[in-house]
Amino acid sequence: MRKTLFTTSALVAALFALGRIPAQSAVETRGETPDLGRRFDALLDANEMSGWMKTMTAEPNQVGSPHDRANAEMVLALFKQWGWDAHIETFQVLYPTPISETLELTAPTRFKATLTEPPIPGDASSARTANALPAYVAYQGDGDVTAPLVYVNYGMKEDYDTLERLGVSVKGKIVIARYGAGWRGLKPKLAQEHGAAGCIIYSDPRDDGYSAEDEYPKGPARPPHGIQRGSVADMTLYPGDPLTPGIGATENAQRLAIKDSPVILKIPVLPVSYADAQHFLAALDGRVVPPQWRGSLPITYHVGGGAAKAHLAVKSDWGLKPIYDVVAMIPGSSDPDQWIMRGNHHDGWVFGAEDPTSGQVALLAEARAIGTLVKQGWRPKRTLVYLSWDAEEPMLLGSTEWAEEHADELKQKGLIYINTDGTSRGFLNAEGSHSLQHVINQVASEVTDPETGASMLARKRAQLEVLGTNPGASEEAKENAKIAADPSRDIRIGPLGSGSDYSAFLQHLGLPAVNLAYGGEANVGGVYHSAYDTDEYYTRIADPGLRYSHALAQTAGRLVLRFADEPAPPQRYGDFADTVGNYLNEVKKLADAKRDAAELQAKMLQTGAFHLADDPNKTSGMPDALKPVPHFNFAPLENAVDRLKKSAKAYDTALAAHAASLPAKTASELFALTRETEETLAPETGLPGRTWYKNLIYAPGAYTGYSSKTLPGVREAIEQERWDDADRYVAITAAALQAYAGKLDRGVQLMNSPNTTAAR
Amino acid sequence: MRKTLFTTSALVAALFALGRIPAQSAVETRGETPDLGRRFDALLDANEMSGWMKTMTAEPNQVGSPHDRANAEMVLALFKQWGWDAHIETFQVLYPTPISETLELTAPTRFKATLTEPPIPGDASSARTANALPAYVAYQGDGDVTAPLVYVNYGMKEDYDTLERLGVSVKGKIVIARYGAGWRGLKPKLAQEHGAAGCIIYSDPRDDGYSAEDEYPKGPARPPHGIQRGSVADMTLYPGDPLTPGIGATENAQRLAIKDSPVILKIPVLPVSYADAQHFLAALDGRVVPPQWRGSLPITYHVGGGAAKAHLAVKSDWGLKPIYDVVAMIPGSSDPDQWIMRGNHHDGWVFGAEDPTSGQVALLAEARAIGTLVKQGWRPKRTLVYLSWDAEEPMLLGSTEWAEEHADELKQKGLIYINTDGTSRGFLNAEGSHSLQHVINQVASEVTDPETGASMLARKRAQLEVLGTNPGASEEAKENAKIAADPSRDIRIGPLGSGSDYSAFLQHLGLPAVNLAYGGEANVGGVYHSAYDTDEYYTRIADPGLRYSHALAQTAGRLVLRFADEPAPPQRYGDFADTVGNYLNEVKKLADAKRDAAELQAKMLQTGAFHLADDPNKTSGMPDALKPVPHFNFAPLENAVDRLKKSAKAYDTALAAHAASLPAKTASELFALTRETEETLAPETGLPGRTWYKNLIYAPGAYTGYSSKTLPGVREAIEQERWDDADRYVAITAAALQAYAGKLDRGVQLMNSPNTTAAR
Repeated sequence: MRKTLFTTSALVAALFALGRIPAQSAVETRGETPDLGRRFDALLDANEMSGWMKTMTAEPNQVGSPHDRANAEMVLALFKQWGWDAHIETFQVLYPTPISETLELTAPTRFKATLTEPPIPGDASSARTANALPAYVAYQGDGDVTAPLVYVNYGMKEDYDTLERLGVSVKGKIVIARYGAGWRGLKPKLAQEHGAAGCIIYSDPRDDGYSAEDEYPKGPARPPHGIQRGSVADMTLYPGDPLTPGIGATENAQRLAIKDSPVILKIPVLPVSYADAQHFLAALDGRVVPPQWRGSLPITYHVGGGAAKAHLAVKSDWGLKPIYDVVAMIPGSSDPDQWIMRGNHHDGWVFGAEDPTSGQVALLAEARAIGTLVKQGWRPKRTLVYLSWDAEEPMLLGSTEWAEEHADELKQKGLIYINTDGTSRGFLNAEGSHSLQHVINQVASEVTDPETGASMLARKRAQLEVLGTNPGASEEAKENAKIAADPSRDIRIGPLGSGSDYSAFLQHLGLPAVNLAYGGEANVGGVYHSAYDTDEYYTRIADPGLRYSHALAQTAGRLVLRFADEPAPPQRYGDFADTVGNYLNEVKKLADAKRDAAELQAKMLQTGAFHLADDPNKTSGMPDALKPVPHFNFAPLENAVDRLKKSAKAYDTALAAHAASLPAKTASELFALTRETEETLAPETGLPGRTWYKNLIYAPGAYTGYSSKTLPGVREAIEQERWDDADRYVAITAAALQAYAGKLDRGVQLMNSPNTTAAR
Repeated sequence: MRKTLFTTSALVAALFALGRIPAQSAVETRGETPDLGRRFDALLDANEMSGWMKTMTAEPNQVGSPHDRANAEMVLALFKQWGWDAHIETFQVLYPTPISETLELTAPTRFKATLTEPPIPGDASSARTANALPAYVAYQGDGDVTAPLVYVNYGMKEDYDTLERLGVSVKGKIVIARYGAGWRGLKPKLAQEHGAAGCIIYSDPRDDGYSAEDEYPKGPARPPHGIQRGSVADMTLYPGDPLTPGIGATENAQRLAIKDSPVILKIPVLPVSYADAQHFLAALDGRVVPPQWRGSLPITYHVGGGAAKAHLAVKSDWGLKPIYDVVAMIPGSSDPDQWIMRGNHHDGWVFGAEDPTSGQVALLAEARAIGTLVKQGWRPKRTLVYLSWDAEEPMLLGSTEWAEEHADELKQKGLIYINTDGTSRGFLNAEGSHSLQHVINQVASEVTDPETGASMLARKRAQLEVLGTNPGASEEAKENAKIAADPSRDIRIGPLGSGSDYSAFLQHLGLPAVNLAYGGEANVGGVYHSAYDTDEYYTRIADPGLRYSHALAQTAGRLVLRFADEPAPPQRYGDFADTVGNYLNEVKKLADAKRDAAELQAKMLQTGAFHLADDPNKTSGMPDALKPVPHFNFAPLENAVDRLKKSAKAYDTALAAHAASLPAKTASELFALTRETEETLAPETGLPGRTWYKNLIYAPGAYTGYSSKTLPGVREAIEQERWDDADRYVAITAAALQAYAGKLDRGVQLMNSPNTTAAR
């Protein structure tokens, strides 16, 4: 919203500033009176954030580097200086680092990949790589192989289906996949599942290079030698230390043997730049790739599998290394055992200016402002826990180990986990538990976009509206546009998959969680996980003046303050119920579509249509036969969703009536109930084949990675043709939703008859 | 269908071959007895076709070249030799040829475009270009301009909408557009309409170069210096000689002054290769283009409009030149005044091996086989007219002038026009009047695919089925797949737009017409209209052994024989009625979608959504406001379609009952009625603003070019926001369909009461 000269709110704020209205009461009457948020805003300083960024990104700060530890200690010192009760918590994790790497084309010609990122003119940081590790992917499997090369596009499941049709096998071969379309780690995982001997992952200029934007230093896109590092541990089974699933990786924790850890790959993998990759891709023969597989290198892309051969060798140091989480608390005044957690990691892959420092400095600015508020006499009702994680990059190690180590306490105390990570110029992107959808809309309406002066919510609405008018907009985009255009409706937040530190909280512990970021304007991910994600890049291209780090601090900070200070829980459950109803419809449609596809394909295999449609002059093969799809009994889920909608409506109605007048004890119980409610979604059972993931509504997809799969027990069972699991998880998920509805009913009872709380 | 060893048909064929069954009777009982088709097949010789191709493509054969005339005379001699009554008919047409061409980048650096196509190693023809014209586009407007350069993607209407949003104007500038997405001539036309001073059209490797396939000579794709020539006369107003719209360009015809011809452009235009274009594109600055605008050159594509400037100059010889149509006839035995017309052009842009010679040699093979059948005693019931057109390439000149010159006679005698043009390996592509859909399916079922041994229909069905299973398949593709999978249903044929010699027959005279081609396997159009469309290219890459020219002769020839020899018309009108019903639904949906879009956009313009969604660091502009869309009275069309469906059903039913037993006189009247029926679709009125186009069902789109717009009077009025025209053409089109239905009713009457025919 644009600023108005003098409104009721402005009047109240002015009186508040003059000390005429005590802080507590200004907050209690929210809706009419901003408020704490404005005092908080005034304490945020973008210049200070810029200074922290410069310091934290002055040297490579990957896990185990001296500068990463120095950053942790600086953060600790700052927290203490700002009045927080802070300490560093250390874990001992398996963190392999490369000893030697080789990648060569050996036939039909020879070429040795450089595997290095030379300095960029005008970017002094990019030359300071003495303490950096060679570019690599963590938790690949060491090895030394020479084999024919096959191009597998993005290396996703459907790409292997296409390879079947092209008549090409990757068995015993080295695959070369481009980054994009799905999580990095799935590329070597799927290659390994299909019998490949090794995997190369490269960044095609079509996806984040010159085709998308001008290359750095002119623009934000990935330069010729830019390399994307990252983790390829099998996150879909569990994140965190590969040797201590489910428990904290403390010094004496019981550990798996490395060879027994199911998340470590068995084949060697290396990431390369397109400057290196082009030599390999140009050498491939065989069929010309389908249109969707074409990148933007000035070559004809072929599938390969013939004469072109590569030599790939990786050797690593597989020792345990210490990691340093900074934990800082301000105890709550009325409910010290209710924790509002807020985190962002501090380790990067090299300098990590955008990822993670742009979010880390927002977290620091919030902590400083809150410290000052406390010094000024404000106290959070509930305890604030600020967390600066180490070792997010290799596989969410710092957050996962801490959450596992303190699981029992967190299940008793955790109210919410609010995460940020990299951010940049542009639009708000909020994903999380759908009970938080409304409060996130409220917060977004209170933060002003530095570029346009409109509220962040207004700008996001505009973006969704315009996206919905794009030719070829999906039905979902059109629906989102319709919602965005209606000011009486909240815009939707997305579900969380994985890729940052919220995972253990949301998916393992079943706590409400949200991830907040800005972006979409300056940045196409062109320096993501490369040595070029520097202070120079960030402050010249991604977010000059750190105006969006500042906005992120306003946004996340406001959400923290809402939870810390409000007299009643900010959750609204109708949003969750509606969302789950939509997910159920999707799953039902999925089953029907899959059934139709299998029937159609069976006929086509019988009539020989695939064979007749092939060009006989080219290699080809038959598609894998699809399994016939039975009809499923979705009734338990349908009934559960029906009840959920009713219970949610009753709760939201009761809350609207009672929020302002709840007795303190009832409010306290109601806050505790929000945690219990969300926890019903994550019973001990866990997902089939990957029981670390407990949440039955939100999970990273087994074959999408970072992207979320909602109702994963049911949806993935159907996708992966495990019909018994589908039936089983309909029942399990329905039971969880029934329990969730039961908690809401309990909330209604609490609000309507506060005196019965003792009898609960 | 695969061959079977001994079936009833084979038995009949054997008896027929032994002379036990007279040809006539074998034909009369079709359905059970192939037939004339097999005798015809046996007279086709692919080797002979290869020889003709070599001769006809030995030298450049563009309009006005000595070799083009020599080809016409060779074709004439062959027809005569085969017993046809043949002659050459000459017209005098405006055909500009380039005198000088210049294209230079003048800022920020200098580069002079080569504008030439060097010889390709291993392709001797490509070096024989002494008699070729410089690469150019016909009917551009001579000029000499120097101006800033703007990249406009494909240069289509929606690209100019996008330019609005990017805040870029082309006024006074030179646009550079890539080939593709719509007809070539629309690019300079739209540029001119938007105030541009000149236009460059280039072939991006994404669309037909190395990104799509290996470049020639390795593969079929356009090599770096390959240039696509073509016509840019405003075909959407009328094709043929720009100076003689509606009349034959005979020596003494009344001609427009060149400056008054509305189809000649006013701005200079040149086509260039990507090797030349890259220098211009790399020089552009301004905004990075949207994702859909990216080509595959190894650069970041920018919109330009700033510092990069080009100098473009074209000067032409605007004299009249003679063209040579070859016309050959075999009179019909029972109905000499009923003409079955079959054509293919003989002029190319340079050597023209695929376009048009691959189709021309099929036509010659048919003519030779038919000549032999006649020598063996067979006679067509109706007159055959074989037409080898000149000057198709500059703008369908040979066919249009002939059709205009003989319009009165053709409206009395023409039963059908069957067209072919370039062809290559792959799948049947048939487009035309939908009353012909069933007979085309029948013919396709009788021709064997040389690659798979299946029938051409079976292969086409398989292709459609597989296309329907592709991820992202359109609803239309899915529907086509469903139809293709059902052997009891005919596959759909497409509607005709423009781009080859059927246009005057179908769209000006209102005769039934069809265009037939094979393709989709070897060829991505990479040598289309370039100096590399040579015999070497064609016989090594596009169709070794000319097996698909052979198949095309079988297909087109069979259709000719069906019309020449059958006792009853092959038309089936239910297909037409259903198709028109579908088109009407599309038009209604179009109106609704456009209404919704206008309402949505109006709201968004009001709330400032477009502004808020923009990146303020980049140039941008508001979209042009859409006009509010009223509701239209579609009832007249709905009623007409209802009646049409009933009448068509009655006709098809009657024909099925009576086809085998029609008295000769009734059959003759019924054939004449098929022409009259189709002619009702093309009343004198014509389309709004382009009255040369009479057909109310099929027209080339005013803003798509080659692609068809169906129900064009109504559809384009809605698209172009001419609301009054929409209402007017609902009525006009409905009246035409009512008249069509009336003719069908007359047909039913003829069949049921043959004696009443005299009273008609």
